[in-house]
Amino acid sequence: MSSRQVDAWLGCRAVFKCENLQRTGAFKFRGACNAVRSLNDAEAACGVVTHSSGNHGAALAAAAGLRGITAHVVMPRTAPSVKRAAVEGYGANVIECEPTLAAREATTGRVMDETGATLIHPFDDLRIITGQATVALELLNEVGELDTIVCPVGGGGLAAGTALATLFVSPSTKVVLGEPQTVDDAYRSFQAGHIITADDSPTIADGLKTSLGEHTFPIIRDHVSRIVTVSEDEIIGAMRFIWTRMKLIIEPSSAVAVAAVHKDRDRLSGQQVGIIISGGNVDLDHLPWINHPT
Amino acid sequence: MSSRQVDAWLGCRAVFKCENLQRTGAFKFRGACNAVRSLNDAEAACGVVTHSSGNHGAALAAAAGLRGITAHVVMPRTAPSVKRAAVEGYGANVIECEPTLAAREATTGRVMDETGATLIHPFDDLRIITGQATVALELLNEVGELDTIVCPVGGGGLAAGTALATLFVSPSTKVVLGEPQTVDDAYRSFQAGHIITADDSPTIADGLKTSLGEHTFPIIRDHVSRIVTVSEDEIIGAMRFIWTRMKLIIEPSSAVAVAAVHKDRDRLSGQQVGIIISGGNVDLDHLPWINHPT
Repeated sequence: MSSRQVDAWLGCRAVFKCENLQRTGAFKFRGACNAVRSLNDAEAACGVVTHSSGNHGAALAAAAGLRGITAHVVMPRTAPSVKRAAVEGYGANVIECEPTLAAREATTGRVMDETGATLIHPFDDLRIITGQATVALELLNEVGELDTIVCPVGGGGLAAGTALATLFVSPSTKVVLGEPQTVDDAYRSFQAGHIITADDSPTIADGLKTSLGEHTFPIIRDHVSRIVTVSEDEIIGAMRFIWTRMKLIIEPSSAVAVAAVHKDRDRLSGQQVGIIISGGNVDLDHLPWINHPT
Repeated sequence: MSSRQVDAWLGCRAVFKCENLQRTGAFKFRGACNAVRSLNDAEAACGVVTHSSGNHGAALAAAAGLRGITAHVVMPRTAPSVKRAAVEGYGANVIECEPTLAAREATTGRVMDETGATLIHPFDDLRIITGQATVALELLNEVGELDTIVCPVGGGGLAAGTALATLFVSPSTKVVLGEPQTVDDAYRSFQAGHIITADDSPTIADGLKTSLGEHTFPIIRDHVSRIVTVSEDEIIGAMRFIWTRMKLIIEPSSAVAVAAVHKDRDRLSGQQVGIIISGGNVDLDHLPWINHPT
């Protein structure tokens, strides 16, 4: 999709790849399907398990449902209710845990021990990365050569997949990542040349709070041009701009990519830019531009 | 656009014609363009004028801008700020008036006297009706035969255009209209066989508060199958459902058509149903499911 008004605001010709319109409301369905389909029958019989703040959990639940196998999804008890409802709606077995990485991993390990389920990591898994790569693959096949592709980065599954697909299909296209300033671990890792883990700083783009992994980091390090960090206000502003002008519901993580293009507009001026809208799962009762009574 | 989850909820196979993605955010751009393009050069030189609660005003402003002529838009002072800003953004001359039909018409008459501008009525004008007819024309051309087409009815420009296009292109397709229960003047007119004007009852679907006109009424009377009225809660529920499941921002008037399909689901069961999403201009600061502090 594209919009004259958005182009005028961004100063480039932008084409949006709308994974908010993907099944389960996010690109995560691609990696989850690829991972679930790659299991042999014996593995599949024991089901799959993951820990996820939401979109990957829903995607794995849906993908497992299509193959007729069980998905166990470990979710922090603080996950937005709309995301938990989505995961349960796809038929998954949801297991709550404390909202820390340690608690998620411990709970996931227990489920694996008890059920024999295969762990499908949300991003640091080559089956997931290659699944997510189909987003950029389709975008490049649909619109032809782009000067730059921009996507958000959290754990790096989408970012690494985008970098790989672009490298294979259109090596002259640059890949730029957007990241929230408050959790700029990918930016700092990219500058340092080694993984620096995220602290637990808050961001409205809650899907991007994770650190890069051992599979995603080297792909990003070697094949991404730059990482642009954006403030919370810039994320909210970009989100609202797209809602208002394109009539598309995009989640804050998606708005990070749009805000990054706006922030980087001097370098992207006049270019043909592909922007990956990663998802559209938003809690409509809690929108960031509306103050709620306490 | 279509959605498995929406089909499951509605009990039919629904295809959405998304005029929320139209320029100016609503179908009104079609009628306005047709009207502005039909002026001769002498008429065009004096500009155009209309009174509109918003979407037609923005559409006429944009259409006039494309032809390089002036649009004068009379708007009630109570119009949502987002709609006024849109009209001004398209370069129109906005003139405020009191929020009554009498005040709108008096102010419009004064502008006509002073400027010689041609009045482009929001709906009761054959150029407008035939312009709006292109919505259903495109829908039928794109998706082939439909059992039923559903659209909202206010003044009846879209409804009459939809009925005419369907009559010419696919006469076996039924046309059903959705209308808010609180302003059910079209329903009552349809039952009575003559125009019954709307009182000033409130509805969230503020674009549908107008009464039918002398051009729109007979077309609707003769070529529409039935009018389904829906409550405010049904409108809000349908709006939120589409936002959540389709990630599309639709305005309350559009949700009236969706709610009407849901309410009429026993009769539409299993059918291929075209739903016209009339627009997506929503004040994001005031969403109907969020209670604001007073």
